Amino acid sequence: MSGMSDPVQSVLQSFRGYVKKMKSYGEALDVMYWDLRTGAPRKGVEARSEVIGELSAEMFKMSVSDEMGRYLEQLSAPESFGQLDETNRKLVEECKKEYDRSKKIPPERYQEYVVLTSQAETVWEEAKAKSDFAMFQPYLEKIVAANLEFVELWGYEGHRYNTLLDMYEPGMTVEKLDALFADVREKLVPLVAAIQKSANKPDTSFLNQTFDVAQQKLFSLFILKELGYDFEAGRLDESVHPFATGLNPGDVRITTRYLPNDVTSALFGTIHECGHGLYEQNISKDLIGTPLCTGTSMGIHESQSRFWENMVGRSRPFWQRYYGKLQELYPDRFRDVPVESFYRAINVVQPSLIRIEADELTYNLHIMIRYEIEKALFDGSLQVKDLPAYWNEKYREYLGVVPSHDGEGVLQDVHWAGGAFGYFPSYSLGNMYSAQIRHAMEKELGALDDLIANGDFASVKAWLVERIYRYGKLLTPQEIVMRVTGEPLDPDYLVRYLQTKYADIYGL
Amino acid sequence: MSGMSDPVQSVLQSFRGYVKKMKSYGEALDVMYWDLRTGAPRKGVEARSEVIGELSAEMFKMSVSDEMGRYLEQLSAPESFGQLDETNRKLVEECKKEYDRSKKIPPERYQEYVVLTSQAETVWEEAKAKSDFAMFQPYLEKIVAANLEFVELWGYEGHRYNTLLDMYEPGMTVEKLDALFADVREKLVPLVAAIQKSANKPDTSFLNQTFDVAQQKLFSLFILKELGYDFEAGRLDESVHPFATGLNPGDVRITTRYLPNDVTSALFGTIHECGHGLYEQNISKDLIGTPLCTGTSMGIHESQSRFWENMVGRSRPFWQRYYGKLQELYPDRFRDVPVESFYRAINVVQPSLIRIEADELTYNLHIMIRYEIEKALFDGSLQVKDLPAYWNEKYREYLGVVPSHDGEGVLQDVHWAGGAFGYFPSYSLGNMYSAQIRHAMEKELGALDDLIANGDFASVKAWLVERIYRYGKLLTPQEIVMRVTGEPLDPDYLVRYLQTKYADIYGL
Repeated sequence: MSGMSDPVQSVLQSFRGYVKKMKSYGEALDVMYWDLRTGAPRKGVEARSEVIGELSAEMFKMSVSDEMGRYLEQLSAPESFGQLDETNRKLVEECKKEYDRSKKIPPERYQEYVVLTSQAETVWEEAKAKSDFAMFQPYLEKIVAANLEFVELWGYEGHRYNTLLDMYEPGMTVEKLDALFADVREKLVPLVAAIQKSANKPDTSFLNQTFDVAQQKLFSLFILKELGYDFEAGRLDESVHPFATGLNPGDVRITTRYLPNDVTSALFGTIHECGHGLYEQNISKDLIGTPLCTGTSMGIHESQSRFWENMVGRSRPFWQRYYGKLQELYPDRFRDVPVESFYRAINVVQPSLIRIEADELTYNLHIMIRYEIEKALFDGSLQVKDLPAYWNEKYREYLGVVPSHDGEGVLQDVHWAGGAFGYFPSYSLGNMYSAQIRHAMEKELGALDDLIANGDFASVKAWLVERIYRYGKLLTPQEIVMRVTGEPLDPDYLVRYLQTKYADIYGL
Repeated sequence: MSGMSDPVQSVLQSFRGYVKKMKSYGEALDVMYWDLRTGAPRKGVEARSEVIGELSAEMFKMSVSDEMGRYLEQLSAPESFGQLDETNRKLVEECKKEYDRSKKIPPERYQEYVVLTSQAETVWEEAKAKSDFAMFQPYLEKIVAANLEFVELWGYEGHRYNTLLDMYEPGMTVEKLDALFADVREKLVPLVAAIQKSANKPDTSFLNQTFDVAQQKLFSLFILKELGYDFEAGRLDESVHPFATGLNPGDVRITTRYLPNDVTSALFGTIHECGHGLYEQNISKDLIGTPLCTGTSMGIHESQSRFWENMVGRSRPFWQRYYGKLQELYPDRFRDVPVESFYRAINVVQPSLIRIEADELTYNLHIMIRYEIEKALFDGSLQVKDLPAYWNEKYREYLGVVPSHDGEGVLQDVHWAGGAFGYFPSYSLGNMYSAQIRHAMEKELGALDDLIANGDFASVKAWLVERIYRYGKLLTPQEIVMRVTGEPLDPDYLVRYLQTKYADIYGL
């Protein structure tokens, strides 16, 4: 803290202590969430929810307290701010952004909203099971209305939805996304059509067998170690919905779900979460105890999960390397299946109704549908009551399939019940980022396929740590893309990657 | 809250909210402790410790805050206190006791002490491994000195040690314990001597085999279900030192440790923790969110772990019922061992050096040694530097064995490193309580052995829930003993139980 005046140094120290305390609440909450999802006893959930409620409320109070306000005012003042190093500047900016945002919502409205979304998630679960959109509709209407109200309070530039996008992908706007998605869609829809017309379809029949779960677990653990996931700084557990949670860089946990009749679900789920995990495990330890100690955006986070899952895990050299191991674990299952057949089967393209089961290619079309819907909800051109019809129409238009009921249609995702408008685009942005980053990586390290063929994941990981992971939130998504690739986000890298890969698989 | 004036009702409501918030911190901390001991990644421990430190400090601050002081002052005033129902009175009393105690220690001294004991536990671990008492001595001296200082600040009646005893067993004093222990010792020492002279010793050779750990786990889970441990309100995990933790009555977790060369260690450890678990799982839900929602004292808690472990789990009818199941799990191991031989083997009496490996009978003598030492440390008749010699002399006197080094002597327990003076007597008090409670139970339900023979653990549990478990801390240990057995604690129940059981086993 050299070159800093005593008063600034003193405020900074108090501020850092205050932020660290807030972050401690955050870590305690994250441990409890992890615990709830990985086997906490059913009968303790109600009391645990109250505990989580108390600590969350306390953490929120701290984020908007007068004390926080004073720190931010003092440290943002030009004469103080100028004395801060880059990390502390970023920290002040990050806290100020959160403070300003939270301060604008009346606390009682925020509290009501937390209760509303919590109830809505429960109702959604039942509505989905019963395919009963009418049951969920009043909740969703209130959630959209609340978000519209919040956007007015927060303020917005251009489209109202921009303010929501910015929460997950700082700096992202409708204007940019419209262009990105139009470009991708224009080129992917013909590719999907060509694939559907191809006579050269992969045989997937051998995937429809049962696979001992204990062996699946062994294989997941084996692959995680190969990829460089650090088991001294993490663990693999099971949960209904797989997730990764970075408690601190020394404790980044991932989960998966083993299905007895599907050997690929747990495996690719594991590799996906491993990507998130590698990111969080390798954030610089200097950032521990601050809100900067996490991935910079959901888009960049997803770029890493998808890089490792798709570009590594679903690549030909990966299976040329590890298929023998899988065959050993299941000698009866794959004896007569050549590795090339396996590789093609795990990359089959098939327009479908359910996003989370979609293939690497059509996945982006699922996202675009949700993006169009969210945009329309927030510019007022679409009402919640008209959602199911709009959804089905879009699925017909983009993917050529129509849900037979809302459970496999508009009710399939939990995001809206939780009020997470603006989140979905992150998934496709992740795909775009990953292709562009891969391209930059190959310019320095040579072909990724060769690295994979040699099992040289250490070089791949080191390259990503050096350029992306270690920075946490010190760099914005835009800064990372510019620094790493030398140009702004360009969706053509994704398009070209997909065109090349699938032209090869389908012999187009 | 009928019959309560508006101002009192309003203060009470704020007080209850405040207490609930404190308890929330407590539950969050307990989840994190459980997590650290059951598999948290090594590299995250340092950051996690900081999180625990922040939350503990916050909780301590709340317990001695001016706000807490005002609530207690207002609610303790006779005109308010008279309006409270019994639960709220107990709650006020419990918080006031804690508040008064904590307020008397200067915060910076408390903080120093927390750091000291935390360091001491680390040093102790190494000192124990190296059998190097000199290494641990300066830490222990400081811990004893701090406790002496705290006792002066807290105040004491009679012996200084009374104030420490009261922390674990409210109302217990040196005067009472001297009498209790003298009585037990006088009768047990001849019994141990008679056993040692007996020619009719159990054969334990068949226990010295290897036992598949997966099967051990199955057996532990099976027995837990039989005893009525509720897996929807708990779970069984593994940890280096087995423990039970009651997060709330719907989430009471226990752990065990499987040793490949010892089939009884994990099993009896599991049953022991099950006893603690049954207690905590069955505390009335009305007490959730208050400090009354836990066992009333360490002595009563241990009475339940020991009741289930020894009086149920080490009984003849228990093994007549379940030995066949164990034989099934290990067909090679026990084929030629009759159940009676197995029963006698798991009840072998053998004076030994290590408390936690001691049998049900000599265990009490280990405790008495620690009690004599703690008493002497706090009346000034024993200095820390003289501990090893004193320890060894007492072991020769009470048990007829002498440690060959301090690692298996004075350094064997962690308690003193953590500053837990006054805790040890709880273990023997637990044995005494359990025998007296058993006697009362049998007057109502008939012979415990018959209930066990019929597998009627539901009746046993229901009786204990109704009379002990559900009250949590609403009743003091003395109130429980008086209500349940109609008389004050009488160590003769324990003595008679042990005399009968071991005269039978050793044919005395």
